[in-house]
Amino acid sequence: MELSNRITALTNGGSDGWDVFYKARDLKKSGRPIIELTIGEHDIGTHRDILEAMGQSARGGHTGYAAVPGTDTLRKTVAQRIKTRTGVPTNASNILITPGGQSALFAAHMAVLDPGDLALYCDPYYATYPGTIRAAGGIDHPIHCRPELDFQPTYEDLDASAKGARSLLVNSPNNPTGVVYDRATWTDIAKVCQNHNLWLISDEVYDTQVWAGCHISPRSLEGMEKRTLVIGSMSKSHAMTGSRVGWICGPETVIEQLINLATHTTYGVPGYIQDAADFALNQGNEDELKVAAPFRRRRDIAMNLIAGQTVVRAVPCSGAMYMMLDIRATGLSGDVFAHVLLDSRQIAVMPGESFGQSAAGHVRVAMTVNDDQFKQALESLLAFAAEQAETT
Amino acid sequence: MELSNRITALTNGGSDGWDVFYKARDLKKSGRPIIELTIGEHDIGTHRDILEAMGQSARGGHTGYAAVPGTDTLRKTVAQRIKTRTGVPTNASNILITPGGQSALFAAHMAVLDPGDLALYCDPYYATYPGTIRAAGGIDHPIHCRPELDFQPTYEDLDASAKGARSLLVNSPNNPTGVVYDRATWTDIAKVCQNHNLWLISDEVYDTQVWAGCHISPRSLEGMEKRTLVIGSMSKSHAMTGSRVGWICGPETVIEQLINLATHTTYGVPGYIQDAADFALNQGNEDELKVAAPFRRRRDIAMNLIAGQTVVRAVPCSGAMYMMLDIRATGLSGDVFAHVLLDSRQIAVMPGESFGQSAAGHVRVAMTVNDDQFKQALESLLAFAAEQAETT
Repeated sequence: MELSNRITALTNGGSDGWDVFYKARDLKKSGRPIIELTIGEHDIGTHRDILEAMGQSARGGHTGYAAVPGTDTLRKTVAQRIKTRTGVPTNASNILITPGGQSALFAAHMAVLDPGDLALYCDPYYATYPGTIRAAGGIDHPIHCRPELDFQPTYEDLDASAKGARSLLVNSPNNPTGVVYDRATWTDIAKVCQNHNLWLISDEVYDTQVWAGCHISPRSLEGMEKRTLVIGSMSKSHAMTGSRVGWICGPETVIEQLINLATHTTYGVPGYIQDAADFALNQGNEDELKVAAPFRRRRDIAMNLIAGQTVVRAVPCSGAMYMMLDIRATGLSGDVFAHVLLDSRQIAVMPGESFGQSAAGHVRVAMTVNDDQFKQALESLLAFAAEQAETT
Repeated sequence: MELSNRITALTNGGSDGWDVFYKARDLKKSGRPIIELTIGEHDIGTHRDILEAMGQSARGGHTGYAAVPGTDTLRKTVAQRIKTRTGVPTNASNILITPGGQSALFAAHMAVLDPGDLALYCDPYYATYPGTIRAAGGIDHPIHCRPELDFQPTYEDLDASAKGARSLLVNSPNNPTGVVYDRATWTDIAKVCQNHNLWLISDEVYDTQVWAGCHISPRSLEGMEKRTLVIGSMSKSHAMTGSRVGWICGPETVIEQLINLATHTTYGVPGYIQDAADFALNQGNEDELKVAAPFRRRRDIAMNLIAGQTVVRAVPCSGAMYMMLDIRATGLSGDVFAHVLLDSRQIAVMPGESFGQSAAGHVRVAMTVNDDQFKQALESLLAFAAEQAETT
């Protein structure tokens, strides 16, 4: 029995880029002491107060169908949060609650792409981006962002690809690079979107993890509100990765259509999870800073270690829970580096190549183990890189 | 800014069929004593033991990303359940856990349809069916099932539409009709699927609610396993509607592709909800019978009342939590009947027309209020019908 071309072409039949991750998991299962610096999963669980709020809601009877757009309460809370942080007037009617950020990314592309439409995204990219566009029937087209420009896209590169495109997907603070786009980059992005009449899909799930500079939401730029769909999530800000709750913020007319799409694709998000998210968001910034603090600390640990050697160069890590390390001086590809590092030193990092061609010769380090382990792993990684550089 | 044709065409711009439902909700909010017999929501919440299992899992730390295909444990439990109930060998690798049955319906169509492919479904239908097919890019084509044949599809009608189609979506026990397809119907369906090389998408979310006859899963019929995708859910069987957890059961090669799709569309289901579902499924049949029992009781109440009059005819209600009532003798359409009944007697039922042309002149009654209220509402509905019949 034949399946659809769409589903069989999601990953173009090639590697999904997670080979090292799966190898590390298998080694760990077999009892080897692997340090995993692979995926964006906190080393803490969801805070017990948030879980208690969830339990209270469930025991209180919020176990039936929740309204498909999200509860009024959570939609209002998210809208207020966005208004406060970006200055853009935002109401509940601008918000659709989704079962996680990935679901929001997919829905946003479903809303703006018809089959065969050209959809742009910046490379390096989060692993699901091209497949998400393909799942929505779009033609995925990467904008190569150069390491020498700290992986920020240029006006010229964006403009050269934008003709005939329908949408541009961006992510700042960025996974996998840790880069936070600066105002000049956002101005370029806004100009290209307006000149070429593009939708901007802005993945801002790391907006609470900023270590240098500041997060700008492009929806707040002149002329962008009507063409921007912002993706948000509780995953990274509140260590609620497993709870699968996120949102899309956009023009009311788009949200109305997205609610209709949600009726036919997900039928809403558990009410007790929404109540837990609402509780969490109402605890204010302090709790979010606590969740973000370990990554800030570990980033400093890594920067200090990297400053003490010359083989590995760090891409300026201004945000998110990752560091991108340029290991080209070792003469190895990111892929070979990651595999040999895992085999010889039991440390798992992600090859840059898993996130696109632009990050070749790099590895992504997730700062997701405790400080001591992280320091030890970074020291070991740098020593490994030095050895490799000597032998080339 | 233009949206995709796909999203704007989801409901063909027309009514979504839920006007009476929304009107009833608004009246209720304004303080009117409305009896709602509209949606498939139990009058009980999720059992506290299931919620306790969920809380234990969450407090125990299962709050990070769960494996995208579903937890090994829940996949095995669902597989074992299906094997036990249908006799078809089924392993964890035949199961994808999804965030609810609607998500499973959508994913199944995404897996088998490319844009423009013809997809069949039986009319009367659950309200989201045509839009689900359209969301997946398919051309939705109803198979009209006639009231005089208890809304079961015929071989001739199926065969006449099947040429060039890719899939057929069926639902038994059926929402909205309450009909349970008999073996003859299933044999016809299987024959058509094999003759025309169709995928069969079998929505079996009401499989624990059977009052007469027995539930046959078409995956168990000869030659059907390789072409059948079964949709299951915890919503109706365990009063877990709000928890959004369901599954697709199908050939391993299809599940592999569906996992890939899930990575790009939902990224899994909360681990603590999966643990709660696993706990619930392991409590055995007795708990499911308890959840189903009120609907069986209310069906008997309704059948007795209907037997005492001649205006309203009940479609044989063999399963599910609904009764379909033929009110054509009143001379009213289902739509007018429902609106006037709500206005004059504060009872909300769904017009048959909300579920397709085949159910015109019918209303669907959800058996989802307590027995006394249900009896009172049915008596009032029948009295109303009698009045209407007299005045025509």
